[in-house]
Amino acid sequence: MTRLFNDPDDFGAEMTAGFAAASARWVRAHPGGVVRSTADAEPTVSLVVGGGSGHYPAFAGLVGPGLAHGAAMGNIFASPSTQQVHSVAAEADQGRGVLLSYGNYAGDVLNFDAAQERLRADGVDCRTVVVTDDVSSATADRRADRRGIAGDLTVFKVAGAACAAGYDLDGVERVARLTNDRTRSLGVAFDGCTLPGADEPLFRVPENRMAVGLGIHGEPGIDETDVPTAAALAELLVSTLLAEIPDGAGTRVVPILNGLGSVKYEELFVVYGTVHRLLAETGLEIVDPEVGEFCTSFDMAGASLTLLWPDDELERLWTAPCDTPAFRRGRVDGQRTRSAATGTAPATAAAVIGDATPRSRACGARIAAALADVAGELDAHAEEFGRLDRVAGDGDHGIGMQRGGRAARDAAADAAGRGAGAGTVLRRAADAWGDRAGGTSGAIWAAALDALGGALGDDTAPDTRAVADAVRAAEQAVTKAGGATVGDKTMVDAIVPFVRTLDERTVAGDTLADAWDTAARAATDAAEGTRELRAGLGRARSHGDRSIGTPDPGAVSFALVVRTVGQRLREEPTC
Amino acid sequence: MTRLFNDPDDFGAEMTAGFAAASARWVRAHPGGVVRSTADAEPTVSLVVGGGSGHYPAFAGLVGPGLAHGAAMGNIFASPSTQQVHSVAAEADQGRGVLLSYGNYAGDVLNFDAAQERLRADGVDCRTVVVTDDVSSATADRRADRRGIAGDLTVFKVAGAACAAGYDLDGVERVARLTNDRTRSLGVAFDGCTLPGADEPLFRVPENRMAVGLGIHGEPGIDETDVPTAAALAELLVSTLLAEIPDGAGTRVVPILNGLGSVKYEELFVVYGTVHRLLAETGLEIVDPEVGEFCTSFDMAGASLTLLWPDDELERLWTAPCDTPAFRRGRVDGQRTRSAATGTAPATAAAVIGDATPRSRACGARIAAALADVAGELDAHAEEFGRLDRVAGDGDHGIGMQRGGRAARDAAADAAGRGAGAGTVLRRAADAWGDRAGGTSGAIWAAALDALGGALGDDTAPDTRAVADAVRAAEQAVTKAGGATVGDKTMVDAIVPFVRTLDERTVAGDTLADAWDTAARAATDAAEGTRELRAGLGRARSHGDRSIGTPDPGAVSFALVVRTVGQRLREEPTC
Repeated sequence: MTRLFNDPDDFGAEMTAGFAAASARWVRAHPGGVVRSTADAEPTVSLVVGGGSGHYPAFAGLVGPGLAHGAAMGNIFASPSTQQVHSVAAEADQGRGVLLSYGNYAGDVLNFDAAQERLRADGVDCRTVVVTDDVSSATADRRADRRGIAGDLTVFKVAGAACAAGYDLDGVERVARLTNDRTRSLGVAFDGCTLPGADEPLFRVPENRMAVGLGIHGEPGIDETDVPTAAALAELLVSTLLAEIPDGAGTRVVPILNGLGSVKYEELFVVYGTVHRLLAETGLEIVDPEVGEFCTSFDMAGASLTLLWPDDELERLWTAPCDTPAFRRGRVDGQRTRSAATGTAPATAAAVIGDATPRSRACGARIAAALADVAGELDAHAEEFGRLDRVAGDGDHGIGMQRGGRAARDAAADAAGRGAGAGTVLRRAADAWGDRAGGTSGAIWAAALDALGGALGDDTAPDTRAVADAVRAAEQAVTKAGGATVGDKTMVDAIVPFVRTLDERTVAGDTLADAWDTAARAATDAAEGTRELRAGLGRARSHGDRSIGTPDPGAVSFALVVRTVGQRLREEPTC
Repeated sequence: MTRLFNDPDDFGAEMTAGFAAASARWVRAHPGGVVRSTADAEPTVSLVVGGGSGHYPAFAGLVGPGLAHGAAMGNIFASPSTQQVHSVAAEADQGRGVLLSYGNYAGDVLNFDAAQERLRADGVDCRTVVVTDDVSSATADRRADRRGIAGDLTVFKVAGAACAAGYDLDGVERVARLTNDRTRSLGVAFDGCTLPGADEPLFRVPENRMAVGLGIHGEPGIDETDVPTAAALAELLVSTLLAEIPDGAGTRVVPILNGLGSVKYEELFVVYGTVHRLLAETGLEIVDPEVGEFCTSFDMAGASLTLLWPDDELERLWTAPCDTPAFRRGRVDGQRTRSAATGTAPATAAAVIGDATPRSRACGARIAAALADVAGELDAHAEEFGRLDRVAGDGDHGIGMQRGGRAARDAAADAAGRGAGAGTVLRRAADAWGDRAGGTSGAIWAAALDALGGALGDDTAPDTRAVADAVRAAEQAVTKAGGATVGDKTMVDAIVPFVRTLDERTVAGDTLADAWDTAARAATDAAEGTRELRAGLGRARSHGDRSIGTPDPGAVSFALVVRTVGQRLREEPTC
């Protein structure tokens, strides 16, 4: 929903004023909208675009060198008035004529047509190219009735580049019209937007459903489905557009994947990956794709795919430089294409497994088996750890431990299978854990396992004392890496009592399995104890009851890991 | 919420692959993230940035000429691993050293520091500048503990420009550190985001509340308030940042107003208008502001303001050209600043009021009074018309009629007050209505009032027949402008019976007041009749019961206008 406004009645005017203040490098306010604040060296044909507000960067964000000369800015989702269009176009005119271009909506057609009449009455040569790219809004035999959506961008960009290249008005009109003929779009929506000051959304899409072909103001769509996967959406968009390849289209295509407001960049990139592959698989060559927000509807949840099939001339104009508040194609001088792998990165060292004694190898195999148990338990508890972590963190502790545990399991199995000793198995597991898990816990577990492996080595089967010493080395690595101490409400709160207890019980003569069990219980108790310490933190941070007195997820997951290892030690007490 | 993904586990990898495919002009994928696909003519110091994914354009969107050389891309909201950072940095290195820069989060610090150690072990000169711009995350005396948010952009941009300018590693590190020292940010949030595949949001902000200083992963804020107006938010952001002006700051400042995902451009521009004014009022000169999305958290609802106080060197570097997927400062050759009003627009004609007969002037005053009544009724019914229009339109009919009616009232009062005749009062009202209302209804009402005014003229007090003839002229103007006919479910369905009835009753000898009354009833009935016609349309369009059988808002508002005029005619039957 739209939250930030003053008097909703003033929204359009305040938005225009703020936009002009933020964008003085490119535009200045003029009654009815904005015009460029810069001029070309020689007069050119002027491109004037426009429409209702609420679709930024369309339309005012596209005013600047190499693109439009002015934008008429209507109220929210309402076409600009005849007077607004006339005012902006008359100011933008440089004496070589004006091309008006905008999306095909009744109000816009009315007002732009009337403005065109007034401009002609003023003696200005004026033409119009209406954008009609939305394939869902009318059948192919009624293309002129279709709405204009994100395909605006291709028409405006090509026309603006033609103006900059010195084309006369006939020429600018010709390439703009050809670009519209060669452009097709299809959009989908998952939810509507709430306009400034409105009590309810302009329209709704039922939860977990997707409206296919819904217009950017909520106009009727052509279908409704469940929300698909990203890949299935890409297939729908590509197959629908490829079912209507324009006359004269070649084998090169410009894709524009547009977000309507709250479908964000990362999601668009996931969808684009499949779009790119599908287009390439049909033999199309992809030219300068664009993925981002080009025609929005406030925070409407939706996306659209536009395809332009350019000829050589349109491609040259599409890729020409431009510089506007929201769309820039720059060029920083002196750049050349860089081939892969030209850095100073050393080639990856081959994963050679060093020598190990037979007993250390046997121990390595057992460690690999224990890490498999650990991975299984981390899988089973990932959801719970995520929940704990959401109280005061970003909720990724579960997935991080899961990724790390699985990677460690696989790396350890690989190393053990190739005859690695205990130390190497642990160090390989450490590296994999850190690399796959990322984050804080990944780095700390990597440090712990690496230190453990370094202390155990590949030469001997470690006895009870050697294990206790190695565990102490791991503890030191953790506190060095993380910088936390007991009472900081981190996993250190569980590690310290674990190591101390293990030390005490092995010195007292317990077997490794017994000592480990006792130590794991101490870790579990300590992890539970972080609950108390975190109560204040939870209250400061969150807004619900669930925040109060949850234990630290890192301490809890540490206790789970050592309990799991203890279970295996009890079942197979010797190497 | 995040809707578009395949297997959530693969989200990070698929996002990276799609991003690289979409952005091959600037980057190529390399294990751990992306590096540039282009090279400078001469080797430079390399800038490597990074962090968790989910913040696009941070961090991968900032790789390209004039900015970063590589980005390490962690999983969603999780720092990249040591291996990832090392892999990207080693590949980006050109033999002149590497600057690592990223926001201050524990996991990032751990992994980037470990990667730095490995790079140094490889013989690469490597330095680190951690970004700490978020004033809400620690007090001023503990600046090094603060988190990094959208201030990343200033540090990265300045450092990247210094690399491109040939600075050595000491120099790049120096300007990056100075930029961080001179950068302050404060963010607010209205709602959290739901990560791909998650069942519930990572965090929530209570409805109609605003969390002040909430971190980009939901870290604790410093306050919670009701959602303020756009202007009050601007005041909060500016006053908080100006309370901590950095040492050595001058009088020039770069503002960056950043949207976190679903607070959109138009809202940001409204806020920015006040930010700009407040900064200027304190005597600060504003340098190249940026308003847009630079550091997001999926579709989190929030915004942040960053201020950089540059010195001459930093300003030169901040404004230097760059070209990356998401941040470009280009320059199209040959542009010069254009002063205001250089177009061919004729100077606005002075609003001279022409001659009129005394009786036409009296009639003009009565028309102005009737238009005041109409404006009052349109105000009272704006909400209802908006509701009707949301069924099959964009919901702006109410506000459009309200704006138009008010503008017509004011213009008519002004013209009548200056002695205009009936025709001029109506034509001035027409022009104002069209200009202020915009949209389809604005254009149609402007055409109708203009035709009415043209037919009545300024010479005579129109008699009953003259009024009926003028109304018929207005009807023709409406059908010409709108192109609709009876049965199209538009206001034409109400106008046509109104005009026909008025004609019949005046021919039959009724007084104007009586004939108008009867005609207005016919219009009201016809407007109600559009309810039936629209049932099918409603069903096709919408998802709820409210869609079925609502009348056309244009027909309903037309009937209201003529009823209102009829009421005045009855009270004052003669001019």
